[in-house]
Amino acid sequence: MLTKKATARAHPNIAFIKYWGNKNNDLRLPVNGSISMNLAGLETITTVMFGDEILEDRLMLNGEQQTVEQTRRVSRHLDHVRHLANVDLRALVISQNNFPTGTGIASSASAFAALTAAACSALDVHPDEAGLSALARLGSGSACRSVPGGYTEWYAGVDHQTSYAASIAPAGHWDLIDLVTIVNKEHKAVGSTDGHQLADTSPLQAARIADTPRRLDLCRAAILQKDFEPLAAIIEEDTLMMHSILMTSSPPLLYWLPATIRVMQAVQSWRAGGIPAAFTIDAGPNVHVISTTGWKDKLVGLLNELEGIQDILPTTVGGPAQIINEHLIP
Amino acid sequence: MLTKKATARAHPNIAFIKYWGNKNNDLRLPVNGSISMNLAGLETITTVMFGDEILEDRLMLNGEQQTVEQTRRVSRHLDHVRHLANVDLRALVISQNNFPTGTGIASSASAFAALTAAACSALDVHPDEAGLSALARLGSGSACRSVPGGYTEWYAGVDHQTSYAASIAPAGHWDLIDLVTIVNKEHKAVGSTDGHQLADTSPLQAARIADTPRRLDLCRAAILQKDFEPLAAIIEEDTLMMHSILMTSSPPLLYWLPATIRVMQAVQSWRAGGIPAAFTIDAGPNVHVISTTGWKDKLVGLLNELEGIQDILPTTVGGPAQIINEHLIP
Repeated sequence: MLTKKATARAHPNIAFIKYWGNKNNDLRLPVNGSISMNLAGLETITTVMFGDEILEDRLMLNGEQQTVEQTRRVSRHLDHVRHLANVDLRALVISQNNFPTGTGIASSASAFAALTAAACSALDVHPDEAGLSALARLGSGSACRSVPGGYTEWYAGVDHQTSYAASIAPAGHWDLIDLVTIVNKEHKAVGSTDGHQLADTSPLQAARIADTPRRLDLCRAAILQKDFEPLAAIIEEDTLMMHSILMTSSPPLLYWLPATIRVMQAVQSWRAGGIPAAFTIDAGPNVHVISTTGWKDKLVGLLNELEGIQDILPTTVGGPAQIINEHLIP
Repeated sequence: MLTKKATARAHPNIAFIKYWGNKNNDLRLPVNGSISMNLAGLETITTVMFGDEILEDRLMLNGEQQTVEQTRRVSRHLDHVRHLANVDLRALVISQNNFPTGTGIASSASAFAALTAAACSALDVHPDEAGLSALARLGSGSACRSVPGGYTEWYAGVDHQTSYAASIAPAGHWDLIDLVTIVNKEHKAVGSTDGHQLADTSPLQAARIADTPRRLDLCRAAILQKDFEPLAAIIEEDTLMMHSILMTSSPPLLYWLPATIRVMQAVQSWRAGGIPAAFTIDAGPNVHVISTTGWKDKLVGLLNELEGIQDILPTTVGGPAQIINEHLIP
């Protein structure tokens, strides 16, 4: 009996310059480049086992057997790896997140980064990091940014090979933190994959895309220079610009809740008072409060005083997707 | 002793397609056309008295003597009328609003519409309605929309003469209401005159301007056809588009408060449930809930159940700026 097995861990990432909209939906080629940081403390661990005796792809997610329908996106992604390995083996995939899914923490990013790394390793396919990142992108666009470590930039590219993420600074470069501030634990009404396809319906999207090189340059420079003020300014601007697109899409996507605005206004007033803090918000209501390690306790205390905060997940800068030894399948 | 005296009343207006940004700041020529409705129930009444014995322009606003500095904008506006009348008389201006100032209800619109009408009448200058509207525009851009009655459209124009508002339907055409929902009574941190000058700093403003003819067409047609659903869709889209510009300006203008979002989300859910209601928001945190007369009591009840509502001012569609007989100066 032939079985090939590997386990990988990957972190979700929070985008400082956001990905919103594809120029090719099948390949998930984005309309604009993006920059993010991996989030240590949050992780997906995924074991993939290919074997002759497995008759169809099966997915266990957080301990629950998924339906064929729910397994389809994973199965299609495994097809890419099977194609590279020139095998036709089905797989059992067991995946666990240590953080809630569907809350705008981009579980699909860490999930597809870990799945890609584990599946490639199991089938003895060894692309370089850029190749692994591009491959992860096919499963979920932002997953490509969870493949390299630390602070990463996704180059939009023009085709499959040229659209991948690379590290622009390792995790140890700057001790930023992301206090993931949950104001609503419900699943999103419109998921990201569908949302990306609405991006073009906003009359403002073309202008956002055209302006992206400026935002990328400012963000990259702020990270490399470890300069918080300009980082804060550009990540908040980028967030407000993405939500401008969301709100002016057809149909409009108005993800914010009262507590979202409450945290945004509070963060801006804290920063005006000298605390390094900035907000960034993905396609959902929850707010990521970016700061530095030394301000963690102070900020968690301040956030907990605000009305409507359901949970705060403190994270630091995470490393790359990695193969690990402990398997979820014995 | 020569005295020339007149009193005028004008209503504020709420824009369905917003004015944001000037192509000429001195003339207040807007970058885009706009559409609004006058608000009956809210009004400014202004008496202007020119006289030989008056040594300098003086302004009493809501019973309080204003300083020379506070009077300057009014004084400069009177200069335009004095120039047309070829007189050099100073004036006493007494103006009263029956609604709070500085809360995003555009008191400057009704104020400069009433001031213009009263000053022209007092000095026996009689421009046609378009000319009066253009003249009012010099004092405050949106004041030009408070000169004609009912539903009005401000044509952006290319110079002073061509930038004025005209009625597209009289007040009796459609029984819309505006429930002005106050969530914050404080004065704005950044006034509209300054805000307009920030519009160009948003990377999205050019795209908003380019898209305006589409929004004007949809809004005008919805009003003429008295069709609430398309009106709701376009006025909310336009509001979200203007706030997209505000939020992405440099510095960013994030006017919304938690209760702002609460009302927005509630209005959208009420509409999904079959109640004709739509939100529009000027450059401030307060929400104008647009509906029709028959839904007033129901909506006021629903709004009063929401947290954070400080006041609700119910208004209907208002007529044009008019000369009235009762003078504020005996």
